[in-house]
Amino acid sequence: MSPSRLFPFLGWMRHYDRSHAREDVAAGLTTAVMLIPQAMAYAMLAGLPPIIGLYASTLPLVVYSLMGSSRELAVGPVAMVSLMVATALTPLAEAGSESYVALAVVLALLVGVIQTAMGVFRAGFLVNFLSHPVVSGFTSAAALIIGFSQLTHLLGVSIPRSHHVHTIVLTAIERIGEVNVPTLVIGGVSIAALIVLKKVAPKWPRALIVVVATTVAVWGLDLPRYGVKIVGEVPSGLPALSVPSLDGDVLSQLLPTALLISLVGFMESISVAKAFASRKRYEIDANQELLGLGLANIAGALFRGYPVTGGFSRTAVNAQAGARSGVAGLVTAGVVIITLLLLTDLFYFLPKATLAAVIMTAVFGLVDIDEVKHLWHVDRVDLTLLGLTFFATLLLGIEPGIGIGVGASLLWFVVRTTRPHTAVLGRLPGTTAFRNVDRYDAATKIPGVLALRIDASFYFGNVAFLKETLAREIEAGSDIETVIIDATSINRLDSSADAALREIERDLAERGITLHFAGLKGPVRDTMARSGLAETLGQTRMHLSVHDAVLAATE
Amino acid sequence: MSPSRLFPFLGWMRHYDRSHAREDVAAGLTTAVMLIPQAMAYAMLAGLPPIIGLYASTLPLVVYSLMGSSRELAVGPVAMVSLMVATALTPLAEAGSESYVALAVVLALLVGVIQTAMGVFRAGFLVNFLSHPVVSGFTSAAALIIGFSQLTHLLGVSIPRSHHVHTIVLTAIERIGEVNVPTLVIGGVSIAALIVLKKVAPKWPRALIVVVATTVAVWGLDLPRYGVKIVGEVPSGLPALSVPSLDGDVLSQLLPTALLISLVGFMESISVAKAFASRKRYEIDANQELLGLGLANIAGALFRGYPVTGGFSRTAVNAQAGARSGVAGLVTAGVVIITLLLLTDLFYFLPKATLAAVIMTAVFGLVDIDEVKHLWHVDRVDLTLLGLTFFATLLLGIEPGIGIGVGASLLWFVVRTTRPHTAVLGRLPGTTAFRNVDRYDAATKIPGVLALRIDASFYFGNVAFLKETLAREIEAGSDIETVIIDATSINRLDSSADAALREIERDLAERGITLHFAGLKGPVRDTMARSGLAETLGQTRMHLSVHDAVLAATE
Repeated sequence: MSPSRLFPFLGWMRHYDRSHAREDVAAGLTTAVMLIPQAMAYAMLAGLPPIIGLYASTLPLVVYSLMGSSRELAVGPVAMVSLMVATALTPLAEAGSESYVALAVVLALLVGVIQTAMGVFRAGFLVNFLSHPVVSGFTSAAALIIGFSQLTHLLGVSIPRSHHVHTIVLTAIERIGEVNVPTLVIGGVSIAALIVLKKVAPKWPRALIVVVATTVAVWGLDLPRYGVKIVGEVPSGLPALSVPSLDGDVLSQLLPTALLISLVGFMESISVAKAFASRKRYEIDANQELLGLGLANIAGALFRGYPVTGGFSRTAVNAQAGARSGVAGLVTAGVVIITLLLLTDLFYFLPKATLAAVIMTAVFGLVDIDEVKHLWHVDRVDLTLLGLTFFATLLLGIEPGIGIGVGASLLWFVVRTTRPHTAVLGRLPGTTAFRNVDRYDAATKIPGVLALRIDASFYFGNVAFLKETLAREIEAGSDIETVIIDATSINRLDSSADAALREIERDLAERGITLHFAGLKGPVRDTMARSGLAETLGQTRMHLSVHDAVLAATE
Repeated sequence: MSPSRLFPFLGWMRHYDRSHAREDVAAGLTTAVMLIPQAMAYAMLAGLPPIIGLYASTLPLVVYSLMGSSRELAVGPVAMVSLMVATALTPLAEAGSESYVALAVVLALLVGVIQTAMGVFRAGFLVNFLSHPVVSGFTSAAALIIGFSQLTHLLGVSIPRSHHVHTIVLTAIERIGEVNVPTLVIGGVSIAALIVLKKVAPKWPRALIVVVATTVAVWGLDLPRYGVKIVGEVPSGLPALSVPSLDGDVLSQLLPTALLISLVGFMESISVAKAFASRKRYEIDANQELLGLGLANIAGALFRGYPVTGGFSRTAVNAQAGARSGVAGLVTAGVVIITLLLLTDLFYFLPKATLAAVIMTAVFGLVDIDEVKHLWHVDRVDLTLLGLTFFATLLLGIEPGIGIGVGASLLWFVVRTTRPHTAVLGRLPGTTAFRNVDRYDAATKIPGVLALRIDASFYFGNVAFLKETLAREIEAGSDIETVIIDATSINRLDSSADAALREIERDLAERGITLHFAGLKGPVRDTMARSGLAETLGQTRMHLSVHDAVLAATE
C-alpha cells in the first residue's frame, strides 16, 4: 500500500493546483458560516452545551481533510448522530452536566476506535445491510423525533426529553398555557425567515442572518427579562487536550450505541461522499472513509468533541461553493478556531429558540415522501419495510427502529432464498439447448428423463424445499428413469446440501433411478469429491451440459 | 382439504389391515416398557416429580397417534426438551414444588398453542434454519450438560442446578468426600449394565431390567437407611382434567423458551419421523406434524403433562419392534394408563441413581464425533459453525447457544451473498454461445463490448459490490462502448437494485457507453417497467440472449 493511498493528502498536496486555492477558501468560509450556528444547535439537540459543538468542529475537520478520500465532504456535528447521542446519554447523566459531556467525549472515542477498526479490517461492506427503504424510513422518523424534540425551545415550555413524538406533542398541548410568547415569536419568525430565504435567496447564509438578527433583537429589547432563554456564557479559547476517562462499565453501556452511531454516521457520510464523487468522476474508498472518520472522531475526543460525521446539507453547500480539496475543510476549521478564540462573547444573547428553528427547518426536509410514492409504484415489499422501520423508530425509538428494519429486510431476503426458483427443462427441437418448459412452448421433455435446473446455491435453508420439489416432479413425470440436475447456478454446496444430495442419490438408486449432474462448478465438485459423492457418481454421471447428460443417459 | 388429510387416522383406520394388529401391539408394548422408566427419568431431569413424566405419556400419545402423519414416531418426554424446561423454570420456582409443576404445565400449553399455530399457518419451513452443523453442535453440548447434570443423583451429592458443565464438575470434585457410596454403586452398576446389555442383548428391555433389579436391591437391602435417594410415593390414578392457570406476566416470561422448545422439539421429531418414513417410502407432512405435536401438547397440558415431542431412541425401538400405524402409540398409552392405575406403588423403592444412569447412557450417545470428523474433510466452515454452537451452548447455555449458532450460520450465508459470483463472457468461436472467459480458454471477448454475467439475485446487500465489479471491469477493458448484463440468473430486483441499475445506466450514458440487458426474467422486467427503467432502455436494449445483444450493439 503506497503512503499516498493511506494518507490521501500526500497525493493531492503535492499536485495541488494553486488556481484552486481561491475556490477552496471561498467554500471553506461559506461552510463555516453555516457550520457555526448548526454546530451549536446540534450540540443542544445532543443535550450538550453549544461550545461542545464548536469544539467538535475544529480538529476532526483537519484530520478528515488529511485522511479522507472525498474532496467535498463537510464533516462535523449532524442532526441524526446528535439525536442518537442524546438518546444514549439521557438515561445515564443529566443533560448539560459535566459528567454528561464526559460521556459524550467517551462516546466519540468509542465511535472513532470502532470506525478505525472497521476501516483497518475492511468492514465497510457492512453498511450494505442498511438498505435504502430502511434508511429512508429511519431517517424520516428520526427527523420527526428531532423536529418535535425542539418544541420545548421553540415554545419556551419545559417538556421532558422523550423520543416518543406523541408524548412530546401531548405534553406541549397540556402546557400550552405556559408558552412564552416572546420565545415563540422569535422561533416562529426565525423559521419563517429560514424558509423564505431558502426560496428567494438560496445563496445567502440564512442561518447566520437569522442568528445575528435575533441575537441583536434579544440584546436590544432585553428579552431575557421576559423569559427568553439564551445561550449565555460561551467560554472562549480552544479546548485543552484531555484523555477521556475510561471505565469498563461505562464503556460496555455505551458500546451498543457506539456501534450504531459508527454505522449510521458512516452510512450518512459515505452516501453523500459517493454522490458528489460520482458527479466529479472520482472514486470513494469506503474503508479509507472509515479510517478518516474514525481518526477524526478519536482526535475530536481528545479535545472534548462529541461524535461527528459527514453531513448532507453542509456538504452540498461546500460543493456548490466550489470546494476542490481538503483545503476547504482546513479553512472551515480555521474559521471555527478563530471564532472560538475571539468571537464567543457574541453568542451570549443568541436565543435558544433560534437554534431550535435552525434544527427544525434542517430536519423536516429529511422526511422522505417521494421515496414512499416511488416504492408504491415499484416495490410494495420494500414500501412495507420502509413503513415498518418508520413506525418502529417512531414508536419504539432509534435503536430498536433501525434494528427491526435491518432484521426484517434480511429476514425477508433469507426467507425468499428458502424457496428458490427451479425449472423443468426440455430440449428446443433441432438444437442442443435445454430451456424451462413453462416459458418455452417449443421445449420438449425427453421421455423418461427429468431435467431440473436449480437457480440458487444449495444450502441448509433450501435443502428441504428442493428435496420436496424433486420428489414432486418425479411423481408428476411418468416412468422417470433418469434425473439430471442442471447445477450451473449452484456456486457452492454446504455440508447440509451435500448430505441431502447423497441422500437423494441413494434414495433414487434404490428406486432404480439414475442421478446425473450437468454443469457442476469447481467449488461444488471439490465438496463432492471430499464427501465421497463424486466417487459414487463417477465420471460417467457428471457432465458439462444437460445435452451431454441426456446423451449419456439415453444411449 | 379432505377430512382424512387433516385427521390422518380417518384414513388409516378405515383401511386398517388386521394382520398388522399383532405387530402394532408388540411394538406398543415394547415401547411402553422403555418409555415408563425414561418418562420418570426425564421428568426428574426437568426438575419435576416422576409422575408428571408418566402423565405426559398418556393423552399426548393418543392425540399424536390420531393426528400425526408418522406411523412409527414415539411421542413422549425427551431429554433435550426436559433440559430446556429445567433451564427455563429453575429461576422461576423451586424444582419439584407445586408451583414449578404448574409452570411446566403452562409451558406445555404454550408449546402446544405455538406448534398448532405454526401448523395452521404452515410455518414448518422455519425449522430449515436449524442447519445440520448447528443442530449437531447444539445436541452434543446439550448431551454433555444433561449427562453431567445427573452427577448429583449418581454420586448422592448435593450439587446446585447449573447448565455450566465446569461448575457442576468442580462442585462434584469439591464435595467428593460427601459421596454416598451405596448410591454410587447402584448408579455405576446400572450404567455398566445398560452399556453391556446394549452390546450383548440389544433386544432386551434393558432399562426395565435395571429398574426392576435396582428397585428390588434397594428394597431388599433397605438402602434408604444408608442414604440412597428413592423416588418414594408416586400417587396412583389418572391425572384430573385441570385448566392451567394463565397469568400474563408468567406467559410473557415463558414465551421465549416456549418458542425455542416448539422449534427444537419439532425439529427432533420431524427429523426422526422423516428418517423412518423415507425407509418405508411414505411422505411426512411437516405442517401436519406440527398440528399433531401441538394438539398433543395442549391435551397433555390439560392433564398436568409437561412438553413432549417425538424422540430418537424410542422411535427406533418402536419401528424395530414392528410399528405399522398409530395403533402402536395407542397401545403404549394404554400400558402407561394401566401402570398409573395399578402399578405406581412398585416405584416406591426405585433409586434416583438408576434414573440418572438411564439418562446418562441415553444422552452420551448423542455426542456426535462422527459429524466433526466428516466436516473436517468436507466443509471447514460448517465445522466452525458446529464448534461455535457447541462451545456457545456449553459456556453460555441452551438458548444463547442455539441463538448464536443459527445467527452465525445465517450471517455467514448472507455475507456470502454480498459478494456473488460474476463472470466476464466471451463468445465460443463459431457458435452463438457466450461463456466465462476465465473458464473457457476458447471464449473470446467481443472488442468494445463488456458482457458481464451476474450469478445471483440483485438486492440491497450486493448492490455496492456489483457496482464496483462493473466499474472495475469497464476500467480493465479497453475502449468499452457497450456493456451487456447477462441477467439470466437474476430472479428478482428489489428497489435498491432497481435504483442502482438506473444510476448505472445514467452514469454509463454520460460516458458514452450503452447499457444492454440479456435474458431478463418476467418479474425483473416488471419491476423495471414500474420504475421507468424499461422505458429508458426501450425494446432495443433488452434482448433474449447475449448473442442477440451483441448483434444489436455492434451492427
